[in-house]
Amino acid sequence: MAEEAAVRAQADAVRRLKQDKADPEEIAKEVAKLLEMKAQLGEDEGKHKFVLKTPKGTRDYGPKQMAIRERAFNAIISCFKRHGAEVIDTPVFELKETLTGKYGEDSKLIYDLKDQGGELLSLRYDLTVPFARYLAMNKVTNMKRYHVAKVYRRDNPAMTRGRYREFYQCDFDIAGQFDPMIPDAECLKIVHEILSDLQLGDFVIKVNDRRILDGMFAVCGVPDSKFRTICSSVDKLDKVPWEEVRSEMVGEKGLSPEAADRIGEYVQLHGGLELIERLLQDPKLSQNKLAKEGLGDMKLLFEYLTLFGITGKISFDLSLARGLDYYTGVIFEAVLLHQENEHVEEPVSVGSVAGGGRYDGLVGMFDPKGRKVPCVGVSIGIERIFSILEQRLEASEEKIRTTETQVLVASAQKKLLEERLRLISELWDAGIKAEMLYKKNPKLLNQLQYCEDTGIPLVAIVGEQELKDGVVKLRIVATREEVNVRRESLVEEIRIRTSQC
Amino acid sequence: MAEEAAVRAQADAVRRLKQDKADPEEIAKEVAKLLEMKAQLGEDEGKHKFVLKTPKGTRDYGPKQMAIRERAFNAIISCFKRHGAEVIDTPVFELKETLTGKYGEDSKLIYDLKDQGGELLSLRYDLTVPFARYLAMNKVTNMKRYHVAKVYRRDNPAMTRGRYREFYQCDFDIAGQFDPMIPDAECLKIVHEILSDLQLGDFVIKVNDRRILDGMFAVCGVPDSKFRTICSSVDKLDKVPWEEVRSEMVGEKGLSPEAADRIGEYVQLHGGLELIERLLQDPKLSQNKLAKEGLGDMKLLFEYLTLFGITGKISFDLSLARGLDYYTGVIFEAVLLHQENEHVEEPVSVGSVAGGGRYDGLVGMFDPKGRKVPCVGVSIGIERIFSILEQRLEASEEKIRTTETQVLVASAQKKLLEERLRLISELWDAGIKAEMLYKKNPKLLNQLQYCEDTGIPLVAIVGEQELKDGVVKLRIVATREEVNVRRESLVEEIRIRTSQC
Repeated sequence: MAEEAAVRAQADAVRRLKQDKADPEEIAKEVAKLLEMKAQLGEDEGKHKFVLKTPKGTRDYGPKQMAIRERAFNAIISCFKRHGAEVIDTPVFELKETLTGKYGEDSKLIYDLKDQGGELLSLRYDLTVPFARYLAMNKVTNMKRYHVAKVYRRDNPAMTRGRYREFYQCDFDIAGQFDPMIPDAECLKIVHEILSDLQLGDFVIKVNDRRILDGMFAVCGVPDSKFRTICSSVDKLDKVPWEEVRSEMVGEKGLSPEAADRIGEYVQLHGGLELIERLLQDPKLSQNKLAKEGLGDMKLLFEYLTLFGITGKISFDLSLARGLDYYTGVIFEAVLLHQENEHVEEPVSVGSVAGGGRYDGLVGMFDPKGRKVPCVGVSIGIERIFSILEQRLEASEEKIRTTETQVLVASAQKKLLEERLRLISELWDAGIKAEMLYKKNPKLLNQLQYCEDTGIPLVAIVGEQELKDGVVKLRIVATREEVNVRRESLVEEIRIRTSQC
Repeated sequence: MAEEAAVRAQADAVRRLKQDKADPEEIAKEVAKLLEMKAQLGEDEGKHKFVLKTPKGTRDYGPKQMAIRERAFNAIISCFKRHGAEVIDTPVFELKETLTGKYGEDSKLIYDLKDQGGELLSLRYDLTVPFARYLAMNKVTNMKRYHVAKVYRRDNPAMTRGRYREFYQCDFDIAGQFDPMIPDAECLKIVHEILSDLQLGDFVIKVNDRRILDGMFAVCGVPDSKFRTICSSVDKLDKVPWEEVRSEMVGEKGLSPEAADRIGEYVQLHGGLELIERLLQDPKLSQNKLAKEGLGDMKLLFEYLTLFGITGKISFDLSLARGLDYYTGVIFEAVLLHQENEHVEEPVSVGSVAGGGRYDGLVGMFDPKGRKVPCVGVSIGIERIFSILEQRLEASEEKIRTTETQVLVASAQKKLLEERLRLISELWDAGIKAEMLYKKNPKLLNQLQYCEDTGIPLVAIVGEQELKDGVVKLRIVATREEVNVRRESLVEEIRIRTSQC
């Protein structure tokens, strides 16, 4: 409407100007009028431009996606429970200062809440820092817990690759002072169990240790002050070839070419026990206290993993660095080696689905007296796993049910709404999962069709004759078989028949 | 350190001033120095003042609270599934404009995210508006879904009463064009089932209809423009006596005393079918189209609720108003009538634990062409229910387990860590829930004590003799009975024994 009026007004103005009836004052008036109309138009346009969408980097989960999500969660959570973990939950936001100084360069990705008076808040970036805050706040020094919840990162994610700004993490952590590498080995066993259980295809779990990395940097001649930044360069080796990483080290970060080349020799190494043994004999590394400690523990870890029978999927990999600031010992990351349903142009490794490590200093950062609680944990990145399961389900054409309804309460004739309400109420009260169509007089065919569409296995049909006889007609959707069941036996009959489905 | 230095500097300055050695320039210098030191001191103090807490209005859930929460969720979700609902999930934040204009006066309680570039976002205030956005966005015109998730309100909650700024809502909604009052009746049935199942004590579900309220306001002489604000005054009647509400209407909101008194007569009415019949004969209300429609539907609703056998707990209550802008028809609210474990000073009604209603216009607000999808739904306020269950559990001294571990793998002598690792790995791989202590050489007594503390029912003990004999000693913690089980039968034996526990 406003648009039409503006067009008309403009045409009027042009006509009058052409007729030369307009003096400058009038022109000015017309211009003002047009501008006003334009502004009005702009407002109207604004209203119409409301975009119906979820925020960038987020998605809804519809019933089908939820069914897939539940499957993945069940596999993961039942593994966590199998290992004796308790469960906790923390708020979605923390005091801003709780997150400050924990994530290094990634801190810029934290979502802050607007200052609306009161405390300054940020959305949680992971579940590890809230866990450490929880331990310190409650003075807990000993805990094995899992936590499944959403975390938030202002990333620019490639969403086709299963990466989001809001995504679930499934975390399992062991806090406490224990004998070395026993909890660390259990975390790797858990990753192995979950990835095997979910049948995502072949995978490898890369393992390294921050102490080995730091020792390696030291013997290669990296100055202490550059450990962190050189570590974040090494972290890129899973995406970028060594030559590029090397030129970043030398060009951008000012490392000597000799030091870079020495690093280059180490970070291309990966293997198992025999590599650990070799490095323990390495003339340079064996002289470095940190590296020696790390290698000793790595050897112990591999012994335990041998007892678990999982070393076949474990690779000690000197190029694994991991970005987060808080790791202090073992670090690891699980990657899928290829992915069935994606295009072949993909590189061999299609991305990380789990990661974790040891962080012995984080809880102490929260404790007023700096008391340390050693921790090690693993985080399963579920969104990527969802994407794979979703693609696989689509490809398989398996029909997935999104409800658990056992029986539809239907009627064969008109005017039986009250009887359907009475019967469905009895079924609900007996714990039977039941639905009915919300129509006074639905056609029997529509009711049967609804069962076909949604996978409901049984139909309980009330009709005038059945009511007189005190029975309900029970129809088995799959076979179209119909049996009359005495009303008082209906619940039992439904239970028996659906426990077999 | 900085503090000491500042004190020393101040003392120096004072001494010099006293000695009269100071000229004005020097005084200015000293003052500047002191200010600088003070600033530094301030920073240091800031660092020490880090408060170890969760944000205001939020809480952590520890393992015990989580166990209670799981029980409540199970009762609620199994009811939703019993009624054939699908499940969805939406992001924790929405575009700010998605929430704009949906909550009336309560909009000020919405949490906004900081503008860090990109879209303007807000945390969801309820699950209803995201559901409507979901329906419009996906052009869904027919859906029965539940959604259990956290919502956010910048309220000043009384947390002892189970109210928070971050809290769970458990929502069940039916969207679609159906015959009148059938889905509405099911929502009330659901509230009745859940509150009965959770055994929270006696409750009443108050029911009213926005159309009856609006019709009542019209016949009482409230001007159209004042419907909303007078409605929000009526909404206070559950907390405040009529006299106060009346003086707000007349004093603050400029309603005529006569109109207020006419409202006063209506809003004190509550009852069942006979009250509906009486109001349908009311000379004024029966002349109002909206009121007549609402009363007609209310009568139908009560007929359906009679078939469900739940009218005993339903009260048609003309004082029920509910704050949210989007309701268009039936509204309802469930309140607990008294609460066992709280002090007796409490008023009889201890607060709302569920609420909902019909909102036929909300989806249309999101649809580009304004297409309406009628909806009705219910929201269970779970935090208040948690508080009650938590108090009750504390009072009962029931010992609640926070893990599901079936067996502890223990050793009777030293140097058996490897054997324990081998055995526990076998158990995990067979799906047995098993734990072990993370020590190389734990004492048997400590291992048994751990089972007592955490409620683990079985201990699988490896010892040198058992290893030689190819058996494991299985100890039943409750009876202290011990049996030797052949290693290859251990999994089966644990399954049998724990299915009985």
